[in-house]
Amino acid sequence: MSLEREEPTHFGAGPAQLPTHVLQQAALDLINYKDIGLGIGEISHRSKDATQVIEDSKTHLKELLNIPDTHEVFFMQGGGTTGFSSLATNLETAYVGKNGKLGKCGYLVTGSWSQKAYEEAHRLRLPAEIIFDSRKYDSNGKFGSIPNESEWSSNLNGDYAYVYLCENETVHGVEWPNLPECIVSNPNIELVADLSSNILSRHIDISKYGVIMAGAQKNIGLAGLTLYIIKKTILNDIQNANQTKLDELNVPVTPIAFDYPTVVKNNSAYNTIPIFTLHIMDLVFQHLKAKGGIKQQEVENELKQKSIYDALDSYPNFYNLPVDKSVRSKMNVVFTLKDSSLDGKFLEEASKLKLTGLKGHRSVGGFRASIYNALTVESVNKLSKFVKDFAEANSK
Amino acid sequence: MSLEREEPTHFGAGPAQLPTHVLQQAALDLINYKDIGLGIGEISHRSKDATQVIEDSKTHLKELLNIPDTHEVFFMQGGGTTGFSSLATNLETAYVGKNGKLGKCGYLVTGSWSQKAYEEAHRLRLPAEIIFDSRKYDSNGKFGSIPNESEWSSNLNGDYAYVYLCENETVHGVEWPNLPECIVSNPNIELVADLSSNILSRHIDISKYGVIMAGAQKNIGLAGLTLYIIKKTILNDIQNANQTKLDELNVPVTPIAFDYPTVVKNNSAYNTIPIFTLHIMDLVFQHLKAKGGIKQQEVENELKQKSIYDALDSYPNFYNLPVDKSVRSKMNVVFTLKDSSLDGKFLEEASKLKLTGLKGHRSVGGFRASIYNALTVESVNKLSKFVKDFAEANSK
Ligand SMILES: Cc1ncc(COP(=O)(O)O)c(C=O)c1O
Ligand SMILES: Cc1ncc(COP(=O)(O)O)c(C=O)c1O
Repeated sequence: MSLEREEPTHFGAGPAQLPTHVLQQAALDLINYKDIGLGIGEISHRSKDATQVIEDSKTHLKELLNIPDTHEVFFMQGGGTTGFSSLATNLETAYVGKNGKLGKCGYLVTGSWSQKAYEEAHRLRLPAEIIFDSRKYDSNGKFGSIPNESEWSSNLNGDYAYVYLCENETVHGVEWPNLPECIVSNPNIELVADLSSNILSRHIDISKYGVIMAGAQKNIGLAGLTLYIIKKTILNDIQNANQTKLDELNVPVTPIAFDYPTVVKNNSAYNTIPIFTLHIMDLVFQHLKAKGGIKQQEVENELKQKSIYDALDSYPNFYNLPVDKSVRSKMNVVFTLKDSSLDGKFLEEASKLKLTGLKGHRSVGGFRASIYNALTVESVNKLSKFVKDFAEANSK
Repeated sequence: MSLEREEPTHFGAGPAQLPTHVLQQAALDLINYKDIGLGIGEISHRSKDATQVIEDSKTHLKELLNIPDTHEVFFMQGGGTTGFSSLATNLETAYVGKNGKLGKCGYLVTGSWSQKAYEEAHRLRLPAEIIFDSRKYDSNGKFGSIPNESEWSSNLNGDYAYVYLCENETVHGVEWPNLPECIVSNPNIELVADLSSNILSRHIDISKYGVIMAGAQKNIGLAGLTLYIIKKTILNDIQNANQTKLDELNVPVTPIAFDYPTVVKNNSAYNTIPIFTLHIMDLVFQHLKAKGGIKQQEVENELKQKSIYDALDSYPNFYNLPVDKSVRSKMNVVFTLKDSSLDGKFLEEASKLKLTGLKGHRSVGGFRASIYNALTVESVNKLSKFVKDFAEANSK
C-alpha cells in the first residue's frame, strides 16, 4: 500500500489538484489521528481534537490573510451555491435589522457565477437588481470584459442591502484586478464577494469586504466546505433584527444551518461539521504558511500566469484569448484554437504529456487551464512549452 | 507511513467509527484513484470517474435496501439539520402543487431530534403542528417512551403536507419498533422519516415512506453528505407546482442547492458534490454487501443489542435504563449509574480498556453506548463484559 504518486499536472477547474504531501498526511490522519486510535473523521465534532482542528483552521487562515478583529471566520457546508442563497437572506436580514426596511440586492454581473448568484436572490423573492451585466458593454456581447466604473457607477441608486461581485469568474476567466472604488468607498454599501476560485492566491485587504465566501474545492481543499469571512457588525445586525418586522416584510428565513449568527455562536459546529474536510483545509493552510504565505504564493502565481499567457500571446494567429488583457484571470486561463478542427489533437497530445483537465467549460467551449495554488511553476512551464510546441508544429 | 491500526472500540454517537478497511481503501484513493494519477477528491464532479461513483453509490444503496422503482435516491450536503429545513419546504411545495392550498406539517415528537425538526418548520413560517410530544404521555415527563397509537391517532385531523418522525432518537435512545399504522395506512399522508442514526441497521419497507433522510456520519460514512430516498410522485408534485400559487401562499422558497427536483435532475451534481465523502459512503455500501447485506447486519445488530442490554439489565440495582423496553434503541444504548458518584470511575476504567466515547449527551447526562454497524459483536461483547465486571466490583 503506497501513498506515493508522481506529481500531477492537472489543470481542471475544480475540484482541483491538491499538494501531494497534504493528501499523504490526510490519508494517515483518516485512519489514526495523532495516535488516538481513530481517524479524524470518526470523532465527535464537539470533542477536544475536533474543536482544535476548527480553532487551528481559523487561526491559520487569520494569519494568512491578516484578518482584522473587525471580522470573523466560519465554515459551512453547501458549496458556493449555498453561499448564493445564504448571503442573500442573511444580508437582507442584517439590512432590515439596521434600517427597518428592505434594501436592494445589487449584482455586478461579469460571468456565469455572478449571474447565478443574482438569479438565486431573485428566485428567493428578494429585490435583486443587476447593476451592470458586462455583456451589455462588450463589443461581442459576451462575458470577457469589465466596464470602467465611470460607465456604471451612476447605475447605483437607492438603498442596497449589499452589492455582490464574483472576484474571479471560473468559467469565463475574468478576474477583477481591483475592487471597484465606488463600492468600497461608500460607507453605506456592504461589499459581498465570491472568492471561490482565487482565495489565497494573492494579497487582499479584508477590511474592504462585508462578507467573503469561498468554496474549498479549488485553492484550499476538498469539496464539501465553504469558508466565510464576515464583518462582525453584520452579525450583530442580523441578531438584533426585529422578528415582527422580518415577518411583516417577508424576509426569507435562512435555514438554521446557514444562519450566520447561529453558526458563529457555535464555532462552526452548530450541526456536524465535516471535520476531515476541514482538517484537509487546515493542512493546506499550514502548507501555505510553511512555504512563505500569500506573499510567496503570489510570486509563484505571477510567474505561472505570465508563463502561460506569454506562451499563448506569442502565437496570435494560432490561439485566441477571448478575455480583455486588463481583466484576465490569474487562475483560469481561457483560450481557443483559431482552427478548432485541431481541438481533439491538442487535447490528445497534451494528455500524452500528462497535461490533463484542459477542456473548457461546456458553456464556453475551447480550453481552460486552471493554475491554482497547488500547480507548481514547473507544471505550468510544462504546459507553456507544450502550448508553444503545438503551435509551432501545427501552424500553417 | 502505515495504514494499519488496532480495531477501535469507540462507542461515540457520531461522527462514528467506520470499518478500518474502508478507510484504508479511501486513504489510497485520496492520493491515486484507480491509477489515474489523481485522488478521487481532485477531479471534476462531472468527470467520468466521479459520475461512476455517484452511479455506483445509488445502485449499491438500491440493492441493499431493495428500493422500488417508485422511489429515487439522491445526496446533498448540509447534514441532518438541512434535512429538517429542506424536507419542510420541499414537501409543502409538493402539497401546494397537488392541492392548491397549504397543508399542515405534522410532527411526532419522541426526542430532541424530532423536536428540532418541528422547531425548524415553525421557524420557517410553515403551519407546523405537534401531533404528540411523548413527554406528555410519560410518567416522568421525559423522553423515553412512545405512546400507543390509540392514544394519539385521534389528534390527526385536517390536511397534512406530511407527517414527520425520527425513527431513532440518537440522544434519548428511543427507536420506533414499527411505523405507526395510522400514518402508513393513510393514503393522504406522506410519511417523512429521519433515519440518520439507524439507516441500514435493519430491514425496512421503502414503499411505506414518502421521504427518508439520513446523515452519513453514523452508519454510512463521514460527515458532509446526507442521503435521501424520495417517492417520485412527490418530485413531480414539486415540479408541477404553480409558481403564482406558491408566491401567493408564501411557501418558503427552498435554496436552489436543496430543491429536490433540481438535485435529482442533475444526478446529485447540480453543484459540486463532495465526491471523496460519497466514495467513502459507497465503500461502506460495498463492505455491507460483501458481508451479506442488511440481513447479516441485522443478525449482528440483534446480537449486539441483546449483549449490552442483557448486561445492563442483569444489574438492576446498579444500572438505570431510562427508556421503555418496547422502544429501546438498537443503536444508542442509554443508561446511568444509580450511584452517579461512580461516573468518573466508570469512564476511566472503560477507557483503560480502550472502550471510548461512552459519555452521554450533554443534555441527558449519564452514558450512551452507540453500537452502529461498524462496531463488531466482539467489540460490544467487550463492553458488556466491562459493564458486568464494573457492577460486580462496585456494588455494595
Ligand atoms: C466562482 C464560483 N462560485 C461558485 C461556485 C459554485 O460552487 P459549488 O459548486 O460548490 O456550489 C463555483 C463552482 O465552481 C465557482 O467557481
Ligand atoms: C437522528 C438525527 N437527526 C439529525 C441530526 C443532525 O445532523 P447534523 O448534525 O448532520 O445536522 C442528528 C445528529 O446527530 C441525528 O442524530
